[in-house]
Amino acid sequence: MAGLRVCSALVTGANRGIGLGIVRQLLQMSNPPKWVYATCRNPKGERAQELQHLASKHPSLVIIPLEVTDSSSIQAAAARVGEHLKDSGLNLLLNNAGIAKLNSLDTETLEDMSQVYATNTIGPLLVSQAFLPLLKKAALGSPGSELSCSKAAIINISSYGGSIGSPSGWDLMQAVSYRCSKAALNMLTKCQSLGYREHSILCAALHPGWVQTDMGSSAGHTPPLTVDMSVQGMLNVLSTLSEKDTGTFLDWEGKVVLW
Amino acid sequence: MAGLRVCSALVTGANRGIGLGIVRQLLQMSNPPKWVYATCRNPKGERAQELQHLASKHPSLVIIPLEVTDSSSIQAAAARVGEHLKDSGLNLLLNNAGIAKLNSLDTETLEDMSQVYATNTIGPLLVSQAFLPLLKKAALGSPGSELSCSKAAIINISSYGGSIGSPSGWDLMQAVSYRCSKAALNMLTKCQSLGYREHSILCAALHPGWVQTDMGSSAGHTPPLTVDMSVQGMLNVLSTLSEKDTGTFLDWEGKVVLW
Ligand SMILES: NC(=O)c1ccc[n+]([C@@H]2O[C@H](COP(=O)([O-])OP(=O)(O)OC[C@H]3O[C@@H](n4cnc5c(N)ncnc54)[C@H](OP(=O)(O)O)[C@@H]3O)[C@@H](O)[C@H]2O)c1
Ligand SMILES: NC(=O)c1ccc[n+]([C@@H]2O[C@H](COP(=O)([O-])OP(=O)(O)OC[C@H]3O[C@@H](n4cnc5c(N)ncnc54)[C@H](OP(=O)(O)O)[C@@H]3O)[C@@H](O)[C@H]2O)c1
Repeated sequence: MAGLRVCSALVTGANRGIGLGIVRQLLQMSNPPKWVYATCRNPKGERAQELQHLASKHPSLVIIPLEVTDSSSIQAAAARVGEHLKDSGLNLLLNNAGIAKLNSLDTETLEDMSQVYATNTIGPLLVSQAFLPLLKKAALGSPGSELSCSKAAIINISSYGGSIGSPSGWDLMQAVSYRCSKAALNMLTKCQSLGYREHSILCAALHPGWVQTDMGSSAGHTPPLTVDMSVQGMLNVLSTLSEKDTGTFLDWEGKVVLW
Repeated sequence: MAGLRVCSALVTGANRGIGLGIVRQLLQMSNPPKWVYATCRNPKGERAQELQHLASKHPSLVIIPLEVTDSSSIQAAAARVGEHLKDSGLNLLLNNAGIAKLNSLDTETLEDMSQVYATNTIGPLLVSQAFLPLLKKAALGSPGSELSCSKAAIINISSYGGSIGSPSGWDLMQAVSYRCSKAALNMLTKCQSLGYREHSILCAALHPGWVQTDMGSSAGHTPPLTVDMSVQGMLNVLSTLSEKDTGTFLDWEGKVVLW
């Protein structure tokens, strides 16, 4: 991870699973960020105890409430981070929060389709919009013109399940609402790469692998990857991203995934 | 269109634009369907007058109310079509109804993202679920095992704008809500092709071209294709679809579009 040198990073859904793993490894880097903003919807809740414990040991870790389906919560979080950063910008935004529903094609509903899309697709759009001024500021304050995650980047945690070209695991999990939301997230990533190129912000979608988290294990299987393996791979990939990678969809090992 | 011989077809958003054009050309075929179900959300309204006029001349044209974002409207439409068809099934379901919002990446909102997704993605899912029993009946009642639009098919009218691999026209129209909804519709189409294969239902996504309709002209441009040209192309493509085409994304000339 020699190449990843961010002054500040923000992770959504950081209280458990992959999000918590990312926060943990960012803090353990040899050249850690000055500030790691770990956001979650309920910082005082049962499920945020590990994150709170981590914060008690790491002064560079700042916990911020952020519910990604609630515009006012997003605005409030962006304002708090902006105040905390003072004159600096935000280098790395990781849209990680997500949900999945294990419906079949036949049992999928209007409500689940809407809720999953609101969380997995609209959330990353609104969060990116709200943090855009801080990302622009980081890009402007960083030397050179080459895009990188150290300069300014939006990374959307997508899924292999959102690959239309090779929709993996249909027999294990139909989850149409989830697949549609992640295909749409990939499109959002492409749009962000086109729209934010002029602001020197790199945008990419990442598949974390099949990982041992609540979500990864929810169909009753044991996924092959630990959180640590997945996160190590992804941070390594992030350290290598440049100009040519904006608008792409890569897995935790850096391999291109079909749209 | 020698190859397209459907006993019954249903079109959503059939009161104007491409949907109305499809209905018109289905009725004009040398071997027209026995029944064409033209659905629209307001059959009595101003915008359905042309469709009403067409129905007064064609006894095989049946107008049915269908608001694609309203589950109870969808259920009621499926029940009415089922009663009308008596012992027969429905061969061809065309999910055509759609909306677009001309927002930029910066002005996109939660409300527009939700509404466009509800219409363009969730609508086709729910409509297909509701008409599935009638599509299955048509497949069972049709000879041979080869998939085709004459047997049983779901055709989702998608858009080149939903192609993540070659997102056309970014400079003309950002419309992130629309692009995301159509990428998600393409994923839905892929899922339907996987899930409904066992029922011998062909599923494909079609890009109609850039067409002179209210939507096509909404950014103030004049699209190159008339409704007639687009619909003629698409019906021709439908007549050629077979086994190998289920789960694909084709344009009005039959060319494969990137996911
Ligand atoms: N695990 C896998 O195998 C796998 C594979 C492919 C992709 N992914 C993707 O990786 C990302 C992380 O998944 P995971 O496996 O770590 O899942 P997880 O263990 O279920 O954790 C999900 C996280 O997202 C948060 N979250 C959910 N809805 C939220 C909302 N509305 N606002 C704010 N936070 C919200 C959760 O917070 P609460 O604790 O408050 O619920 C939790 O922190 C997701 O985007 C997922 O789709 C995972
Ligand atoms: N025109 C193009 O260049 C182009 C290009 C690519 C893809 N497409 C796709 O082609 C399809 C047809 O587009 P078009 O150009 O014909 O658009 P259009 O002229 O704007 O017509 C849209 C149709 O959809 C109906 N509709 C909208 N929301 C509905 C709802 N909630 N329930 C039921 N019906 C609803 C409208 O009914 P009302 O009259 O009640 O509003 C109208 O009949 C769309 O899916 C569009 O995305 C068009």
